Amino acid sequence: MAASTTDPVSEITALLQARKALIHDKDSSALIAQSAPDVVSFDALPPLARQGTDALREKLATWLGGYDGPIDFAIHDLAVTANDEVGFAHYLYRVTGTMTDGAAVDMWLRATVGLVKRDGVWQITHEHTSVPFDAATGQAALELTP
Amino acid sequence: MAASTTDPVSEITALLQARKALIHDKDSSALIAQSAPDVVSFDALPPLARQGTDALREKLATWLGGYDGPIDFAIHDLAVTANDEVGFAHYLYRVTGTMTDGAAVDMWLRATVGLVKRDGVWQITHEHTSVPFDAATGQAALELTP
Repeated sequence: MAASTTDPVSEITALLQARKALIHDKDSSALIAQSAPDVVSFDALPPLARQGTDALREKLATWLGGYDGPIDFAIHDLAVTANDEVGFAHYLYRVTGTMTDGAAVDMWLRATVGLVKRDGVWQITHEHTSVPFDAATGQAALELTP
Repeated sequence: MAASTTDPVSEITALLQARKALIHDKDSSALIAQSAPDVVSFDALPPLARQGTDALREKLATWLGGYDGPIDFAIHDLAVTANDEVGFAHYLYRVTGTMTDGAAVDMWLRATVGLVKRDGVWQITHEHTSVPFDAATGQAALELTP
């Protein structure tokens, strides 16, 4: 049974937890190296979908570049399901920091990540991050907490 | 390599495509039967996360019950990665219908689904659906198309 195979779960957990330092330091290259060249991402900001390394680089430049100074990133409620070849993970994450326009950010989002092991290395082939929205107002729900 | 194993990919594709009829007919019981009892879902509407069959039933009652008459549901750009035990899939989907208040709905969302095979049957253990939001206005981007 997949979830009881401890090695791939530990490997994927380590890959995702490594993001805390990579995002704090705005290390785009290391973040891109976690993803497959053909990664498909559904991001919290438009468009509906992005594909490939160039699109990921552009997203990271906009996201990381929007902050003045470091970004604090913390993973909560991580759950990983994997065997030796295929895995997926989901977690909530909290982002805190200060935007270049001075605005303080402190928000929770959700993430789902799909991975395959290629040549012995886990690669993210799909990632989905979002916040819910309020159906009555159409506003993104940016102040939710777990 | 996972993606080249055609059987699990075909099985998961069939499970997901079956939703077209189940959602059209508002068949909550059959939709719930696709998910594991401990399913964790990140939905387009709050809260941040839900867990378990009761929470799923409540979500479906609100969602399906919000429509007057059938709901048209179409999957686009489906990609499935799986081996014999673990799989994940992502797709865009278009929902069209008429709300009970008379409002016409025609919107595109993104979905990611994680599955495990238990006792020979694929079960959805995680699902993430969302729309992006506009960072400048804070509004959910409900009019995006692929």
